[in-house]
Amino acid sequence: MNPTLWQASIRDVQFGTEVTCVEPCNLYGCSIGDHSFVGPFVEIQRGAIIGKRCRVQSHSFICEKVTIGDDCFIGHGVMFVNDLFKKGGPSGNAKDWKPTLIGNKVSIGSNATILPVSITHQVVIGAGSVVTHDITEPGIYAGNPARKIRSLP
Amino acid sequence: MNPTLWQASIRDVQFGTEVTCVEPCNLYGCSIGDHSFVGPFVEIQRGAIIGKRCRVQSHSFICEKVTIGDDCFIGHGVMFVNDLFKKGGPSGNAKDWKPTLIGNKVSIGSNATILPVSITHQVVIGAGSVVTHDITEPGIYAGNPARKIRSLP
Amino acid sequence: MNPTLWQASIRDVQFGTEVTCVEPCNLYGCSIGDHSFVGPFVEIQRGAIIGKRCRVQSHSFICEKVTIGDDCFIGHGVMFVNDLFKKGGPSGNAKDWKPTLIGNKVSIGSNATILPVSITHQVVIGAGSVVTHDITEPGIYAGNPARKIRSLP
Repeated sequence: MNPTLWQASIRDVQFGTEVTCVEPCNLYGCSIGDHSFVGPFVEIQRGAIIGKRCRVQSHSFICEKVTIGDDCFIGHGVMFVNDLFKKGGPSGNAKDWKPTLIGNKVSIGSNATILPVSITHQVVIGAGSVVTHDITEPGIYAGNPARKIRSLP
Repeated sequence: MNPTLWQASIRDVQFGTEVTCVEPCNLYGCSIGDHSFVGPFVEIQRGAIIGKRCRVQSHSFICEKVTIGDDCFIGHGVMFVNDLFKKGGPSGNAKDWKPTLIGNKVSIGSNATILPVSITHQVVIGAGSVVTHDITEPGIYAGNPARKIRSLP
Repeated sequence: MNPTLWQASIRDVQFGTEVTCVEPCNLYGCSIGDHSFVGPFVEIQRGAIIGKRCRVQSHSFICEKVTIGDDCFIGHGVMFVNDLFKKGGPSGNAKDWKPTLIGNKVSIGSNATILPVSITHQVVIGAGSVVTHDITEPGIYAGNPARKIRSLP
């Protein structure tokens, strides 16, 4: 049998001024603020909101229900999650998906995994971390699960 | 010097009915069952078998010797492994590569890493986990190395 | 607004003899030694140096200031890091970025994250590991943070 083939593309995206994207990327139904940058091999899903002056680096995935503030850095291979498989597998119902809210000046290291949480302003997440709980205090967090390892300088 | 350039493509794949793939992806010599979906930036190697009604999400890599059952969800950035580098590096001999067997209704969270193991039916693997041992009992597993954290609801 | 669109491509790369690359990939200003292979969905940045007979597998990201020796294997989804966000976020000044030096015959498992470190010759890094410190002794290392788990056979 022949499969149905879709193409990664940029469609129905609300772009601010002076945004740069590197193709191939798969961006649809999302919003990307002024002066932001999106690297290659990135997917950003419907309804996700990226603020101003952000960098979303190569290989990252930003799912529905994620909101990212201004001046944020999303490293390479960062994966956001909105479905906790509470019933033992993925829910086909978007009502079961949980939101993620990222403040301003948040920098997320490469290969980090971000479960549906809130992260306040001025936070650094170490590379390779898994963030499983809300972060309500500025600082540097790392590990699996991510814990505070230092205050900001 | 000029390098030899190959192109990611879909070749020699056995597709069931009603399969959807998002290009660019690199699928070769594998089998993908009825009604399954493969997202963009995915690589699936020769001999891998994906069951029916599965979703393989963006950025995942499924290697030779992996068999995945029906109704499975492979999250974004999930990496399977078949070579344990037992002799201190990669083996060029496929006889040294180990198989992975995934049952039915298994959901693997984004950025998880799956070493060559068997995972029984009805298992959830948390995002960012590293699965290093066989999983013989249904339930929810997470961490590095992944351990059982809850039974299914 | 319409974004500025760039295309992932191969530009200003110094290739040795008999190199193979799978497109799409985004390679610029780097050097790749004789008989090496670069898989699809890979990004390698300006100034990175890859030795001879290396394999850089799909979905990996190799940043500026990384030097990799000969006969190395970089698994799928491996992310290198050069910026430790010491001042609470990314530094726009390359002087703040730290180098990574990888010896010969080093094999890095899939989904591993490599902070700016030195790794000696004949080292195996387990899949999913996070390497946060220099590795000065041959052996097999794994975990987050990666620790020595075995000597080589």
